[in-house]
Amino acid sequence: MPLLVMKFGGTSVADLARIENAAKKVQAEVARGYDVIVIVSAMSGKTNELVGWVEGTSKLYDAREYDAVVASGENVTAGLMALRLQEMGVPARSWQGWQVPINTTSAHGAARFVSIPRENLDAKFAEGFKVAVVAGFQGISPEGRITTLGRGGSDTTAVAFAAAFGAERCDIYTDVDGVYTTDPRISPKARKLDRIAFEEMLELASLGAKVLQTRSVELAMRFKVRLRVVSSFEEVDENSGTLVCDEDEIMESKVVSGVAYSRDEAKMTLLKVEDRPGVAAAIFGSLADAGVNVDMIVQNISEQDDPSDKRAHTDMTFSLPTNQVERAKKAIEAASAAGKFAYSELVTDTEVAKVSVVGIGMRSQVGVAARMFAALAAENVNIKVITTSEIKISVLIDRKYMELAVQALHDTFELDKA
Amino acid sequence: MPLLVMKFGGTSVADLARIENAAKKVQAEVARGYDVIVIVSAMSGKTNELVGWVEGTSKLYDAREYDAVVASGENVTAGLMALRLQEMGVPARSWQGWQVPINTTSAHGAARFVSIPRENLDAKFAEGFKVAVVAGFQGISPEGRITTLGRGGSDTTAVAFAAAFGAERCDIYTDVDGVYTTDPRISPKARKLDRIAFEEMLELASLGAKVLQTRSVELAMRFKVRLRVVSSFEEVDENSGTLVCDEDEIMESKVVSGVAYSRDEAKMTLLKVEDRPGVAAAIFGSLADAGVNVDMIVQNISEQDDPSDKRAHTDMTFSLPTNQVERAKKAIEAASAAGKFAYSELVTDTEVAKVSVVGIGMRSQVGVAARMFAALAAENVNIKVITTSEIKISVLIDRKYMELAVQALHDTFELDKA
Repeated sequence: MPLLVMKFGGTSVADLARIENAAKKVQAEVARGYDVIVIVSAMSGKTNELVGWVEGTSKLYDAREYDAVVASGENVTAGLMALRLQEMGVPARSWQGWQVPINTTSAHGAARFVSIPRENLDAKFAEGFKVAVVAGFQGISPEGRITTLGRGGSDTTAVAFAAAFGAERCDIYTDVDGVYTTDPRISPKARKLDRIAFEEMLELASLGAKVLQTRSVELAMRFKVRLRVVSSFEEVDENSGTLVCDEDEIMESKVVSGVAYSRDEAKMTLLKVEDRPGVAAAIFGSLADAGVNVDMIVQNISEQDDPSDKRAHTDMTFSLPTNQVERAKKAIEAASAAGKFAYSELVTDTEVAKVSVVGIGMRSQVGVAARMFAALAAENVNIKVITTSEIKISVLIDRKYMELAVQALHDTFELDKA
Repeated sequence: MPLLVMKFGGTSVADLARIENAAKKVQAEVARGYDVIVIVSAMSGKTNELVGWVEGTSKLYDAREYDAVVASGENVTAGLMALRLQEMGVPARSWQGWQVPINTTSAHGAARFVSIPRENLDAKFAEGFKVAVVAGFQGISPEGRITTLGRGGSDTTAVAFAAAFGAERCDIYTDVDGVYTTDPRISPKARKLDRIAFEEMLELASLGAKVLQTRSVELAMRFKVRLRVVSSFEEVDENSGTLVCDEDEIMESKVVSGVAYSRDEAKMTLLKVEDRPGVAAAIFGSLADAGVNVDMIVQNISEQDDPSDKRAHTDMTFSLPTNQVERAKKAIEAASAAGKFAYSELVTDTEVAKVSVVGIGMRSQVGVAARMFAALAAENVNIKVITTSEIKISVLIDRKYMELAVQALHDTFELDKA
């Protein structure tokens, strides 16, 4: 029997009416001949309620108890979904993480999968059950304690089950109907993509397209799980949504698939950093220790601006989220005061944004960067920092030009045309 | 290390402040040198929320899914209580039913204990944990599904753990400070009892004194678990509350320990029932099949009121909750129409109440019934039905005299005096 994995997030199971709506989508796939593993999140708001109680009880909470409390939200949804399916005449039962079992590491709050044995669920499918409703986001540690997987854990659970059970596809039901060429709120010409390659989705996810969580895309890419993003609130057929798949499945891909942005970026530059081995490690090590999420890093070539000074110097620029600027400043000043490195000045710009173009077609196409820079120049948008990867080009620009830049790039690469 | 079991009901853990208050009581016992097993209910209101969701999803719900959903309420409290204790510096961890494991039958929604192996908890106590916080009301079936024990299941869990672990005492923390000679709302002279025998508590519980659930008292009596009823909302020391214990532990017991009542009673009488073997079985079998909770049953002696009629007749009277009268009528009429038994008339009185006196001293004392009836007669209270057991005498009277009767009996047996 072919098997599907279907995952419903918190807003898709927010109340009994929505659970019923989701159950109907499961029933439709069973009618099409599939066995189905359903992965559910907690009803929206419930996880926050539970987290609030934990944090209200203990500031430095024991992560094992946190997990035991918070995982209960998904258990409730799993039971209710199984009941609703039974009510519709679909043979279904719920599974909590420890019942499957979903074996994970002991890293409570951020556990990783160790194994998902098929034995128990397969036995039930063989008995005639058509649907296994699994509580997402959780597992069991080698010590027999309940673990949770951290943010996005339900998406990751869905992909892990699809891999373990050789599912034909893993459908992620959410509140948008697919992946777009860019944010439709910024460019009305944004177009839903029928297909997108894993690598592209990964770049878009890490750039802040919130449709899929980065880790779940990574896992899908590794195990070649075909992922589909579909809407819980629309009629769904085989052509709905966006399929995230291996690039082999994408007939003809454009040079650029999407334009992404990140609004709340800041740029910091350390001027006249002594240019010697280990200085970058000292700077970014200090920032990492302070929990600063550094994104782009650019080091200009070394120069000797004063002939009387024998030492070489360089400028070191990096980007980070705006709300981490103060923390980063303190970390740099402390590390410098401790003698780890020296610099002449720290320049901060908190009014920047990042705009990126992403596409696997870039790998075989020359001149993409030039087209991008020309499009920005035509709009008089000054580029402050550039970084590139194999399938992505990102620039930092003044924040006020962000929407303009996204629209110009969307037009230049003709993303509105299928 | 001596061990205590402490049980906190829903109102005692209704919010984070109350969980903290309960945790302080646990901390105090740890300071006194005890290892403690804490049994917790769901935060009040939570179980109703979960039950509402189940019933809103499926009218004829699968009891296994019901249990999986509903048991999550206790799991949340267990985790929060463990966290609060840790915060106070008390080494504690939470245990869900399947982790202990609490092995039960597969009778979902009304499961019975099969075994509670000590191994896992004992290992943690040996490691230096002082408190095991156990989610009450639940267990695990031989099939590995989550079970619940039904109403009062948390009290029963507490007693079962006290028996399994040889606890010195099982303290039931609730919103009253003990067991009273009668309801203080009815008699201002009601006095808190320091001790009461299991048998007496059992009669009082079945008579509607809501302090302890009948099944938990039965279990305590069978395993000789010393039970104590104490208030969550007062300072507690070794002399607080009421100890429910073996009668050997009660030095000198009065002939009557308490006066109980049940307000919403009805009385039904079947006149001229044919008096032949099997007729009582037919009547009460029909009522049981209809789910009617029959309490008192009285059959008058057989008489032949018409010499021309060769058959003997009797009158059959029974009491039942007022709100089950209609159901009982239909069951009797249907069974009679089906030829199971015949009667001349069905007389219903929905304006009665039951008043009982309970005391193990009765067994060795004569004349208790006579004193009771005399006290009622002195107040002109007419007695409609009488039943007796070894340690209890119950009467049905007109409901309007109920308070008067309770007060008169409390005075007659001098229950206000220690």
